[in-house]
Amino acid sequence: MSNLPKKCLITGGAGFIGSHLARRLLNDGAEVTVLDNLFTGSKSNIYDLLDNPRFTFLMHDVVQPFWGQFDEIYNLACPASPIHYQRNPVETIKVSFIGMMNTLDLALKTKARVFHTSTSEVYGDPDVHPQPETYWGHVNTLGPRSCYDEGKRAAEALCADYIREYGVDVRMIRIFNTYGPHMHPSDGRVVSNFIVQALQGKNITLYGDGNQSRSFQYIDDLLNAMQLYMALPHSTVKEFFAGHGMPVPVLNVGNPGEFTIKELAEMVLEMLPNAKSKLIYQPLPKDDPKRRRPDIALAKELLGWEPRVTLREGLPKTIEYFRTLFNK
Amino acid sequence: MSNLPKKCLITGGAGFIGSHLARRLLNDGAEVTVLDNLFTGSKSNIYDLLDNPRFTFLMHDVVQPFWGQFDEIYNLACPASPIHYQRNPVETIKVSFIGMMNTLDLALKTKARVFHTSTSEVYGDPDVHPQPETYWGHVNTLGPRSCYDEGKRAAEALCADYIREYGVDVRMIRIFNTYGPHMHPSDGRVVSNFIVQALQGKNITLYGDGNQSRSFQYIDDLLNAMQLYMALPHSTVKEFFAGHGMPVPVLNVGNPGEFTIKELAEMVLEMLPNAKSKLIYQPLPKDDPKRRRPDIALAKELLGWEPRVTLREGLPKTIEYFRTLFNK
Repeated sequence: MSNLPKKCLITGGAGFIGSHLARRLLNDGAEVTVLDNLFTGSKSNIYDLLDNPRFTFLMHDVVQPFWGQFDEIYNLACPASPIHYQRNPVETIKVSFIGMMNTLDLALKTKARVFHTSTSEVYGDPDVHPQPETYWGHVNTLGPRSCYDEGKRAAEALCADYIREYGVDVRMIRIFNTYGPHMHPSDGRVVSNFIVQALQGKNITLYGDGNQSRSFQYIDDLLNAMQLYMALPHSTVKEFFAGHGMPVPVLNVGNPGEFTIKELAEMVLEMLPNAKSKLIYQPLPKDDPKRRRPDIALAKELLGWEPRVTLREGLPKTIEYFRTLFNK
Repeated sequence: MSNLPKKCLITGGAGFIGSHLARRLLNDGAEVTVLDNLFTGSKSNIYDLLDNPRFTFLMHDVVQPFWGQFDEIYNLACPASPIHYQRNPVETIKVSFIGMMNTLDLALKTKARVFHTSTSEVYGDPDVHPQPETYWGHVNTLGPRSCYDEGKRAAEALCADYIREYGVDVRMIRIFNTYGPHMHPSDGRVVSNFIVQALQGKNITLYGDGNQSRSFQYIDDLLNAMQLYMALPHSTVKEFFAGHGMPVPVLNVGNPGEFTIKELAEMVLEMLPNAKSKLIYQPLPKDDPKRRRPDIALAKELLGWEPRVTLREGLPKTIEYFRTLFNK
């Protein structure tokens, strides 16, 4: 038995993070099934994996139940950028909640370990800074972002209930802003936006005065945390969180280095000295968080992990990806 | 057409509030269908309605889709007391979210008007006092109450999305503590608890020091607000909330009169002079809100409504109900 490859399912595995994770797990020798409806994911993210015999692509919507015997299920399915999730808010909140429910029901029946990717958006527009995992958040239930924020909050609550009621082995993380190759070029996130605008010689759009801050995590750092977390025995995870007075496992995973949006824009332009872009300013969208930075003390303690890739190191790799994409 | 009775569906119509509403709507000449899985509702609440030809009882779980052509759908299905919803947290959050989704899908297909009963629990343990509708709340996504609180928050977000995306005519209220005849005797709420304990000659249990405050609304006041709200034309509702800068219709409905739990206990004992109960104290449960009081300015302005039944008037009627129940 021990020589058989580990079997992993990744919902949303054709998306930015999911496709990176699939590649990693395949490199480590696992069998990987990617389940994706390609609403925001793209098959081009996994072209290079399709001829790997340990790889399976399943075109399926997580809102419909699914089945399979896996050792590990990674739940990554959900449109994650405002531009995408606001295109179909009802679908977004259904994916978040019902997709989670279908994932947990499958894990319950098959005793699979579940990795759930929650988000710093559960903190909303925070009034505590930086945000520890015990912060309850500040979220509008009725605003234009609520399909995502409240969908993700309800998914967390659902995980907590499956853990408490049924003992399902769920590990949650709250991902803060993450960037890198394979980001969707038109998802409206600030890193991809700025790079794409600069590469196309367009002006760079800042919302508000550009002084709102964000933390930017390079994709490789996120993947490191995910793999370290999933490798721990169930008992270790349970004891660690119980010891911290937390009812269920949840870790912030992000880069605490804080940059203003304007600093990011200037760094992109510095790395693309031939770009003729200028900075232009637009009004801040409704409910846009003004500041967000992860407190990662818990992840450091449990995983011995911290982000290693600085923005100055990660940005050029991301720029390179987009440059290649546009030159195709 | 105008002489045909109005057709109303009440999900959770065998519960405390639902059964009162069914009785009211029947008295007004409507055809009423009650949909209930009797998880916390009780058929005894609607025994007196069963022989009314305009009444239909449908034993059904809102988590499964349902169908019917109705003018008005009242979504009241959800275990609402901590003792009930913590008995089956997974079912509770599913009922809240998927029940709402099925309700909205039916309304979308049939152009029915929807009344959704949300709850003051969406405010959690509030750090603003009293709570206006624009307050975002303070809720733990992972605590023992989150199945209810986050389920209800996600249901609100879902309503907001169906309103924005599809123009469904949804009116939401956030109900604050409500009491009256037909409350479940063992639902663990403070009013029924105290009355039942006193009637049975048991000591009255206070959690914490008894100085946490609550507002108590008599059932008739709640029903008045519901009927006034549902009688308004869609355009009136839309314009009113738009005029207040609110994206979707939501009203606090409760009694702003504030009492400590201890005052309530003393009032019950005063009304039952033969009871030999004493007050005893137990530790406060996790995440129990310390204070909650509705700001009802919006409901006053839109409906010309305010609560009329004081605690001194409503308590005796509730005591009388429980006395009869126990003497059966």
